[in-house]
Amino acid sequence: MTARTKPHILVSNDDGIEGPGLHALVASMKKIGAVTVVAPAEPQSGKSHAMTLGEPLRIREYQKNNRFFGYTVSGTPVDCIKVALSHILDEKPDLIVSGINYGSNTAMNSLYSGTVAAAREGAIQQVPSLAFSLTTYENADFTYAAKFARQLVRETLRRGLPPDTILSANIPNVPESEIRGVLFTRQGRSRWEESAIERHDMYGNPYYWLGGSLQLHDSDLSEDEYAVRHNYVAVTPIACDMTDHRFRSELETWGLQNTIKK
Amino acid sequence: MTARTKPHILVSNDDGIEGPGLHALVASMKKIGAVTVVAPAEPQSGKSHAMTLGEPLRIREYQKNNRFFGYTVSGTPVDCIKVALSHILDEKPDLIVSGINYGSNTAMNSLYSGTVAAAREGAIQQVPSLAFSLTTYENADFTYAAKFARQLVRETLRRGLPPDTILSANIPNVPESEIRGVLFTRQGRSRWEESAIERHDMYGNPYYWLGGSLQLHDSDLSEDEYAVRHNYVAVTPIACDMTDHRFRSELETWGLQNTIKK
Repeated sequence: MTARTKPHILVSNDDGIEGPGLHALVASMKKIGAVTVVAPAEPQSGKSHAMTLGEPLRIREYQKNNRFFGYTVSGTPVDCIKVALSHILDEKPDLIVSGINYGSNTAMNSLYSGTVAAAREGAIQQVPSLAFSLTTYENADFTYAAKFARQLVRETLRRGLPPDTILSANIPNVPESEIRGVLFTRQGRSRWEESAIERHDMYGNPYYWLGGSLQLHDSDLSEDEYAVRHNYVAVTPIACDMTDHRFRSELETWGLQNTIKK
Repeated sequence: MTARTKPHILVSNDDGIEGPGLHALVASMKKIGAVTVVAPAEPQSGKSHAMTLGEPLRIREYQKNNRFFGYTVSGTPVDCIKVALSHILDEKPDLIVSGINYGSNTAMNSLYSGTVAAAREGAIQQVPSLAFSLTTYENADFTYAAKFARQLVRETLRRGLPPDTILSANIPNVPESEIRGVLFTRQGRSRWEESAIERHDMYGNPYYWLGGSLQLHDSDLSEDEYAVRHNYVAVTPIACDMTDHRFRSELETWGLQNTIKK
């Protein structure tokens, strides 16, 4: 490949510039194209599609082993994509990848995920974008996930994506030999069972930590959370359009439009 | 109505406890049911579905005219709903309403919106939920929006909503006599044209403010942004399921599943 035909890939994440999953993804993407890294300066888990409106953002260069590695942005994953496209890159990248996230972004997790949101911001800005997540918080081994990311990115570069749709891949944290295959799934309905913890400070005033655990409400392999629990890679296409089109037709029967003036 | 049959309505927003739109919505909802207010202590525009993971949350009582008005939470709109359901309310409310937001939550704005996210968190927690937004930032008149909210809430209490789907209503900032009707719309494709502003601090270091303006990419009355610009109330059903189901079928042809092991 000549320099001209080499794709330019923007890499971001939500675990921040020091996230091991980011470094695994960058190393993997460098085998495919030219890579620019723009990642949050601090961990940004659970930030969803939040953008920073009330305060300014800083961009800083980040070194790894005394060499330039990428840029940090003092904001959210979505801020990173916005600032990368408006101020860091001279032209739009060919592709944006986000991850590899610590922890699954299946089911309702997709709504809270900064990793998924960074990719979705890429789609809004009309760049084909993908998110990658490893379904564990501990003993993470990004080896196979990084390899799979390369396969899916190569295929995406070849085939393209529909406008306003991303791919969100969740990869089980097992050796490649235990992976049972790749499934194109839907966002499942598994959701968190809340258990905010109440504590008291030294003045006796209460404070709360949000917490909980993901409860399985998915029951077949078409659903992402169920698929990854059975050692399949689950790739869910996520749209920017959140309209419930089926229910929209039903709403026509609610009779609220009677007042329409010509 | 007796106290037993009066619906219990939880009201939140993303502009914060002092937002005039919240107070207009609370006054309107009090004509229908018993109201509990749990709103962010500070403005939270653009926070999307972000939740607070890295720090504790505080709940405080908030007075208006020397009388208890509601609770503030030191976090995001989604935090408010989570904390309200886990620690403030004794039982699930019959309905959650979020707003009335300053500024439209049509098209891609729906992704950034904390107002929409608060309602969506309600849906995740299996409470019928609605979001209301007034399509202006200046000279806001919440009179008609608050009245329409009451109509739509009454209808929703009567008919219910599908699980995991909310209604997001955008109301033009015009007198009721100029409203042309109510349309059940889809989330449009209008998106922000970015124009992050670069400035320099006293040390000569650059910083950036995110900004821009919503560019119209919608072209008919089935799309929310187009509808509100033509003085229709636009009600978009928003699903928690973001799967692009159409593209999912096409992905089956990508041939990545060849590796599936039985």
